[in-house]
Amino acid sequence: MAEFFKVVRFGEAQKLLRDNFPPLQTEKVELSRSLNRVLARDVLSHEDMPAFERSTVDGYAVRARDTFGSTESIPGFLTLKGEVLMGQEPGFSIGQSECAWVPTGAMLPSGADGVVMMEYTEKLGEDTVLVSRPVGPYDNVIRIGEDSRWGEVIFSRGSRLRAQDIGVLAALGVTEVKVFSPMHMGIISSGDEIVPINEVPTVGQVRDVNSYTLAAVITNIGGIPRTYGIIPDNRDLLSQGLEKALEENEVVLLSGGSSVGERDFSLEVLLSFPDSELLFHGVATRPGKPTLAVRIGEHLVVGLPGHPVAAFMMFTVLCAPLLGPVPARQVRAVLNANVASQAGRDDFLRVELSDSGEGMVATPVYGKSGLIRILSLADGFVHIPYEKQGFKAGEPVLVTLF
Amino acid sequence: MAEFFKVVRFGEAQKLLRDNFPPLQTEKVELSRSLNRVLARDVLSHEDMPAFERSTVDGYAVRARDTFGSTESIPGFLTLKGEVLMGQEPGFSIGQSECAWVPTGAMLPSGADGVVMMEYTEKLGEDTVLVSRPVGPYDNVIRIGEDSRWGEVIFSRGSRLRAQDIGVLAALGVTEVKVFSPMHMGIISSGDEIVPINEVPTVGQVRDVNSYTLAAVITNIGGIPRTYGIIPDNRDLLSQGLEKALEENEVVLLSGGSSVGERDFSLEVLLSFPDSELLFHGVATRPGKPTLAVRIGEHLVVGLPGHPVAAFMMFTVLCAPLLGPVPARQVRAVLNANVASQAGRDDFLRVELSDSGEGMVATPVYGKSGLIRILSLADGFVHIPYEKQGFKAGEPVLVTLF
Repeated sequence: MAEFFKVVRFGEAQKLLRDNFPPLQTEKVELSRSLNRVLARDVLSHEDMPAFERSTVDGYAVRARDTFGSTESIPGFLTLKGEVLMGQEPGFSIGQSECAWVPTGAMLPSGADGVVMMEYTEKLGEDTVLVSRPVGPYDNVIRIGEDSRWGEVIFSRGSRLRAQDIGVLAALGVTEVKVFSPMHMGIISSGDEIVPINEVPTVGQVRDVNSYTLAAVITNIGGIPRTYGIIPDNRDLLSQGLEKALEENEVVLLSGGSSVGERDFSLEVLLSFPDSELLFHGVATRPGKPTLAVRIGEHLVVGLPGHPVAAFMMFTVLCAPLLGPVPARQVRAVLNANVASQAGRDDFLRVELSDSGEGMVATPVYGKSGLIRILSLADGFVHIPYEKQGFKAGEPVLVTLF
Repeated sequence: MAEFFKVVRFGEAQKLLRDNFPPLQTEKVELSRSLNRVLARDVLSHEDMPAFERSTVDGYAVRARDTFGSTESIPGFLTLKGEVLMGQEPGFSIGQSECAWVPTGAMLPSGADGVVMMEYTEKLGEDTVLVSRPVGPYDNVIRIGEDSRWGEVIFSRGSRLRAQDIGVLAALGVTEVKVFSPMHMGIISSGDEIVPINEVPTVGQVRDVNSYTLAAVITNIGGIPRTYGIIPDNRDLLSQGLEKALEENEVVLLSGGSSVGERDFSLEVLLSFPDSELLFHGVATRPGKPTLAVRIGEHLVVGLPGHPVAAFMMFTVLCAPLLGPVPARQVRAVLNANVASQAGRDDFLRVELSDSGEGMVATPVYGKSGLIRILSLADGFVHIPYEKQGFKAGEPVLVTLF
């Protein structure tokens, strides 16, 4: 069997892809259309929020120092200056030994720098309030700019906006945001053995799974997939298909045709394009060794393995992160089986997660390599790095959720 | 302060909403458009996959019983009958003490019921193969229907399809699926104090956060949000707005106006619609007590609290699950602080997750209730049920990720 031309480590493959990834365009979108989009620049607050001091409780606004030493047995005596109405500016200020009633959310009168909760007060007649507990400066008060300061970075470039984040931006009066434009990604399935999914495969044929999983996972991370069907092992047809896909997309994924074999001429076809450069041919990972990347002008072709599990995994770990932070999360879990890995390659171990009642448990998903249903069994994966020769049962591992 | 009319427990509120939720319509969609959709009926396999026995290794197809007792010192001798080519039907069968070369993925000749890996064989001359290890029946073989059996349920009604699941369906030749149609959900913000997000609020005003977070979270779970802007505290305007929203949506979310207060007339307006029924007015939860639900004909109005954190939380726990399984996950984590909860209500404690290296740690997200940025701080929430009076620091709790 022939060798791969240019096998690189996983970290090197990541770097080569990042360095040669077509630059993402940016665009402005209305806040209401920004869900799951990735910020192309920092969002700054353009106001102090709140713009005035407000109470977080129902109680009496005071000068904090006037309450120092107040106890149940020796309460402080304050003069009631007035009442602040919700949503209105108080028309007065608070001086020494004075106080004013404020409901939750209301503005503090000037002079006041704390609020005594109603529970620790007692009203005596018309205009005297007994205070049985001291408050410190700014106790029970939201200060000016405590939520956001003018010029403060609220969300950084590269953040992916969730529903809650959109709420925060709405509160700050941000009506549109600058985000990265979705990247167009073409998908070609190659190989004589691949048939469309509506056909019944004969012996030796398989249905075109990768066009479907790759398109879906591209959509999930905010890209725009375009499929170009199945191209048989024919030099001219592959060349024509690639040319069209490269015209219409910044990145083209070619699944199948990247392994080493007699009929593997896709690399030759790729390198026959003008201004083409082989970035790598083979990555020291499992699964996914037969992965290649070629830069063609400003565009990029990533050849993924034909095997659906490997293709999905390699797209997830190599390509998806280039479109901005993937909405993936990492969870620590205890592995419930020994896992061996060869030093000198990065392994991506697919696992199912379960809950022991005390913590999360990760069970490796194995399965005969021809089985397709194992594709949808895992909840996430564990990255076993280059240096590491596996994990022991009972070790806590970091699981990246799909 | 007046009381809520009809306060129910969280479980009861869930049940009332489920029982009165407008029925979801169904539709057929192409597989390529089914990402994140929820299956409206079981998907069955309509074929055996694989349709023939295939090898999972490079090696020799054998009758397993002919290898029993083979060892390195006393190898078994088999007669090489032929070679199976990848993707082709073998034109011969295997009899007693015969074998045939099969590459990974190739079809087994009839008569063979196991494959000896190449590593444990040695070829002797033209047509003799030495076997140094026995194989059991169906070792290194994927059996007919092992991936899926005709008629087997592959994904159940109610499953939400991920990219990987779409891949499995593609492999099975499923070209379209029956899914629930997206539900239309109208959103009304009510209250004199609410201003559009492009305005600068004066004292006592707040920007309309809920229209944005609710629309985004509805989109996230596959619904179609439609916003109806801000309706001031005016009986006629509210009635007109609700009428329009009810015409155009199966469910209407009314944020604000569900707490008990002098100006709270939204319930009266809702109950003035023909065939309207109060399901509940107040839920024994924190946050989210001022949540109400009214059935109007076949439609449903859910009144959510005006406070953005509470509105987001109550939509997440009460409404979202009704649209099918939420793509949320649960993670076990150790709480790093004592958390008190009153018995007699369900608490939803927002937490940040971090990784201790041994397991996940949940830190409660508190914050002065007027602060808006805490909306986007939490990674998930812990449900503290009715009976439970909080958790102690160090207890393992179940965190539902946002």
